[in-house]
Amino acid sequence: MHYKLLLEYDGTNYHGWQIQPTGATVQGTLEAVLSRILNTPIRVRVAGRTDAGVHALGQVATFQAPQPLDLARFQQSLNSILPSDISIHAISEVSDTFHPRYDAQSRTYRYRIWNRPHPSAIHARYSWYIPYPLDQGSMNTAAALLIGHHNFASFQGSDSVERTPWRTVMRSVICREYDFLVYTVEARSFLRHMVRNIVGTLVDVGRGALSTDEFAAVFAAHDRSRAGLNAPPQGLFLVAVRY
Amino acid sequence: MHYKLLLEYDGTNYHGWQIQPTGATVQGTLEAVLSRILNTPIRVRVAGRTDAGVHALGQVATFQAPQPLDLARFQQSLNSILPSDISIHAISEVSDTFHPRYDAQSRTYRYRIWNRPHPSAIHARYSWYIPYPLDQGSMNTAAALLIGHHNFASFQGSDSVERTPWRTVMRSVICREYDFLVYTVEARSFLRHMVRNIVGTLVDVGRGALSTDEFAAVFAAHDRSRAGLNAPPQGLFLVAVRY
Repeated sequence: MHYKLLLEYDGTNYHGWQIQPTGATVQGTLEAVLSRILNTPIRVRVAGRTDAGVHALGQVATFQAPQPLDLARFQQSLNSILPSDISIHAISEVSDTFHPRYDAQSRTYRYRIWNRPHPSAIHARYSWYIPYPLDQGSMNTAAALLIGHHNFASFQGSDSVERTPWRTVMRSVICREYDFLVYTVEARSFLRHMVRNIVGTLVDVGRGALSTDEFAAVFAAHDRSRAGLNAPPQGLFLVAVRY
Repeated sequence: MHYKLLLEYDGTNYHGWQIQPTGATVQGTLEAVLSRILNTPIRVRVAGRTDAGVHALGQVATFQAPQPLDLARFQQSLNSILPSDISIHAISEVSDTFHPRYDAQSRTYRYRIWNRPHPSAIHARYSWYIPYPLDQGSMNTAAALLIGHHNFASFQGSDSVERTPWRTVMRSVICREYDFLVYTVEARSFLRHMVRNIVGTLVDVGRGALSTDEFAAVFAAHDRSRAGLNAPPQGLFLVAVRY
């Protein structure tokens, strides 16, 4: 029997999703709890392997159980044993052939910038603090250039090896929500560090260090060294995976 | 020169506002940083001494500085030295006679209940998780009974000694905000544990363990042993102090 989990986590205390030789990871924590409840070693597959410090509101993971599960009771057991910074929103049965990563039609990420002159104690764990004004209009003009099927090599993590730097972005927009600037981006899939590299470069546009024409040139150069800094992880949320 | 600070803090890692013999407190942390910057021992006065684990969005504290301050620069220094879970939103000069506690016209607290069948990883630090349905209508009927000048002995912390259990409540209302039930209460001042005792008893109404008539009888009994449990601290925020 194969099952799909919809899960939320606060990435602050984890070295990312994927199991590492040292340090707690979300995958490692989840697999340990699943293995304990089901009394057999369980491995999970995931839709998006988030980096250290990145959060998720709608991550999707699958696993195979040795016997059919009472879903409501199993979810309750999981939530009572998991640490409070990982929670299971839903569990459902899926076919043997379902793969959370390869079957995804799109992933949506959101990046939150706390854009006020003073820092926020409550939101520090979940946002990037930028005290100076940011021009939302020019950031949105730049963000819209990313929509479509493009070569995103300029925003690829420098240590990354992918088959191709081409990706398809369906949505790329900046909104103001109270004291936050929020960047929402949806794509079929992403390159490593792509969202945080885009945000770092959009912030350069917002603070006037880069014009929207220069942003377009950076994007067209297909050269990571031309783009802005990698934005810090704590502002980033994987919000949804669509199938 | 006397100065007023508007501050926000995440109470998770503090043993409340007030300095204790052991354990970090918000007051102790703030006074240490002020004393270090001003190079002389500084004591602060505060509008509301929040309990261990309680948060603040709009706490007010005052202190006396040995010399006039460059306010913008001083605020920046404070925020760069304070830990990320305490932040200064504003600083202004006040008269020698201003007292943040005695001059307050009202305090507003907000209590957040995460009211979904599953817990939330992101909001666990800032809410009380109640998985079962709560009847907002009957909770609001009960909450409205508290508005006015009343004897709040039924909601007073049992270890508390106050001159009088009479308090004046101006606002007492439950709203639904997405996945949360939020209780907002404004009063001239509060008894110890009053908000959390009220919330614990309102939840008894919401889950049907107490009718609104029974709630009224509990309130009229002036007897702490009749009311509900003390709601946990992490859902409570001091949101504003009015002068």
